[in-house]
Amino acid sequence: MSLENKFNSLSTKNAPGQEIRQSDQNINRIMIGKKMDGILVDFSHGDVDAFKPTPNSRKNWEQGFLNGASQAYTEYRGSFEIRNKLANRLSNFTNKTICPENELIITPGTQGALFLAMGSIINNGTKVAIVEPDYFANRKLVNFFGGKIVPVKLNYKNSEIKNSLDLDHIENIFKKGVKVFVFSNPNNPTGIVYSNDTINKIAKLSEKYNITLVIDQLYSRMLYSGESYTHLCSCDTLPKSILTIMGPSKTESLSGFRLGVAFGTSRLIERMESLQAIVSLRASGYNQAALNTWFNEPKGWINDRVRKHEEIRDELLKVFRNGGLQTTTPQAGSYLFPKLPQLTVELHDFVRLLRFQANVIVTPSTEFEPNCKNRIRLNFSQNKEEAISAAERIVEMTKIYQI
Amino acid sequence: MSLENKFNSLSTKNAPGQEIRQSDQNINRIMIGKKMDGILVDFSHGDVDAFKPTPNSRKNWEQGFLNGASQAYTEYRGSFEIRNKLANRLSNFTNKTICPENELIITPGTQGALFLAMGSIINNGTKVAIVEPDYFANRKLVNFFGGKIVPVKLNYKNSEIKNSLDLDHIENIFKKGVKVFVFSNPNNPTGIVYSNDTINKIAKLSEKYNITLVIDQLYSRMLYSGESYTHLCSCDTLPKSILTIMGPSKTESLSGFRLGVAFGTSRLIERMESLQAIVSLRASGYNQAALNTWFNEPKGWINDRVRKHEEIRDELLKVFRNGGLQTTTPQAGSYLFPKLPQLTVELHDFVRLLRFQANVIVTPSTEFEPNCKNRIRLNFSQNKEEAISAAERIVEMTKIYQI
Repeated sequence: MSLENKFNSLSTKNAPGQEIRQSDQNINRIMIGKKMDGILVDFSHGDVDAFKPTPNSRKNWEQGFLNGASQAYTEYRGSFEIRNKLANRLSNFTNKTICPENELIITPGTQGALFLAMGSIINNGTKVAIVEPDYFANRKLVNFFGGKIVPVKLNYKNSEIKNSLDLDHIENIFKKGVKVFVFSNPNNPTGIVYSNDTINKIAKLSEKYNITLVIDQLYSRMLYSGESYTHLCSCDTLPKSILTIMGPSKTESLSGFRLGVAFGTSRLIERMESLQAIVSLRASGYNQAALNTWFNEPKGWINDRVRKHEEIRDELLKVFRNGGLQTTTPQAGSYLFPKLPQLTVELHDFVRLLRFQANVIVTPSTEFEPNCKNRIRLNFSQNKEEAISAAERIVEMTKIYQI
Repeated sequence: MSLENKFNSLSTKNAPGQEIRQSDQNINRIMIGKKMDGILVDFSHGDVDAFKPTPNSRKNWEQGFLNGASQAYTEYRGSFEIRNKLANRLSNFTNKTICPENELIITPGTQGALFLAMGSIINNGTKVAIVEPDYFANRKLVNFFGGKIVPVKLNYKNSEIKNSLDLDHIENIFKKGVKVFVFSNPNNPTGIVYSNDTINKIAKLSEKYNITLVIDQLYSRMLYSGESYTHLCSCDTLPKSILTIMGPSKTESLSGFRLGVAFGTSRLIERMESLQAIVSLRASGYNQAALNTWFNEPKGWINDRVRKHEEIRDELLKVFRNGGLQTTTPQAGSYLFPKLPQLTVELHDFVRLLRFQANVIVTPSTEFEPNCKNRIRLNFSQNKEEAISAAERIVEMTKIYQI
């Protein structure tokens, strides 16, 4: 693939957080009615002013800074002292023993972990199974490393059927040369959590067909009432090569620190470190110290945070469903993925109109599922009242632009 | 290239900062004499305890943290406000106008800038001219992106000849299909600064043959008495595609923040941002605020820092030259690249012995120039007395292991 094509496929024009670079050109030509009142809500990512970073994250950073040289220049895979603590806590969380020396790497964000993981296992022509919809960077990463995407459909449109990955289809593509399977659980953007049965079957099939698994568990701590979560890495049967990815950017609001981890097969962790050495050497040394707060929050803090997100989830679901927008109930995470009615404008224009006319920033569904052109994704980790009001404006906008 | 081979070529076993992962196995079998006394000096990188981070860098970070969401989630290319200030200051420094909107990106360290730059211009089969010796990651990056290294020899061994890149050779390889030329100026590891004449000729040849230039100017502020520096980006004749890379990790000791910048051709900056979006989204948002101190240090602070490094340089040059180790005088930067006498042990074993027996960590020359097996690189940004004592131990070790 030429560099020109390679970079066209990486376009960030519609990526979350880059809306400032979109043009407002000709927006007046397609706008119907007036600009709406209401405080700007940026649903493209969580609002760390509404849900503040973990208590003590700043204090830990400062201690890291004061530690000086030893903290500034850690091993490329991160400070051993911090890896040691994390391995312990993550072993407890996942119910899988993780060796701090060889099986864990600290990365610049969960995005960094995903990049290093995929760069370590995907080469020209590698066939990679990717769920649709799923985190927008997964497909871009496969393209960048020269791999070939083999799509796996997730049924999230029928609220009667849960966890609906087609396991027969998965076995079929594993048989036909897929080498790598990358997916997020909870799923981004739908918030679906795969069942214990599904996760165990994926583990078994991957072992049988020698598939390398990358499971992005970024949102696995934000689990709502009545839901249960299975860590694939703790299944009885496992493939030889497996990486689990997590980070404190979401539930814990530490995104400004750019911290993540990957843990799993030591040979792959070693490759990730070699790649990290030429990508950016290490996650910022001082920032690594903020990981001391992770899985070490004050008692009740996480529960309280999850409960507050659940309240917002329930309110927004009401608004969208009352407005006629089909929306899957997220079992975890802070994303909603409502379906829009048929509109008189294209999805990307509607998204621009939402920003310009209704003061609401959302991400178009095409970022997650190229052929899905009638949904928007919202990160509802926001101020509750402002989010409800913004959701009401979205519904109002669908009425204005409905066919 | 198979992933196995690709990652073998990325091995970090001898990379600076990774010495802790080297084995001490069998060291006693080859060791002659006893362990030496003396405080451990890690010459693999600068000591930010000896030369502290820029005043106010911590205060600026804290202000960034307190700014909250707007600082945590910047554009992928970095906060516009900070880019705006930097573009201004870097325009003054380089004497080249830089547009903050389109011609500058903030990256996770200078390493991050180099990775994004090379990833944006090197594809399978791209011929890339690389100086030997030069920064160790340059060659690894070409390999990783599937390019083909075309070496350009730098003569640093004859102290009578300065700036000795062979421009006829360079024109010759440009004629023969080289598309990209990447080099550091000042050169790492020798500290050579290319003359005004050399830089202007490289610019002209690159324009003539349509070469994309990447100039790593990481050390361009640490310029010693009587030396002058030419910024290639300010030459009269320039190629269509050019990127300059800098960062505050060295002279300013902000390495623990992982911050760098690249500026130049807007189409390439755009590509770098698209790549950044899948690599790690952005340089840590809070850390970006520390860039407010860059090129904005207290009056006299930089001059004082350069003068102190020059003192250490001069002392170490005396120690090595008195000990019979040929060493090029660095014109800038904080690296020395002394030549070892013929030894009874291999270079990599001598480096391990230095660490184990003499409490001195250095980087073997093979990291910078694969065929050079008789030099070591030292970053002398260290406590002066400890560095002198460690240099004396290095000389003593060469006497012990000399043939």
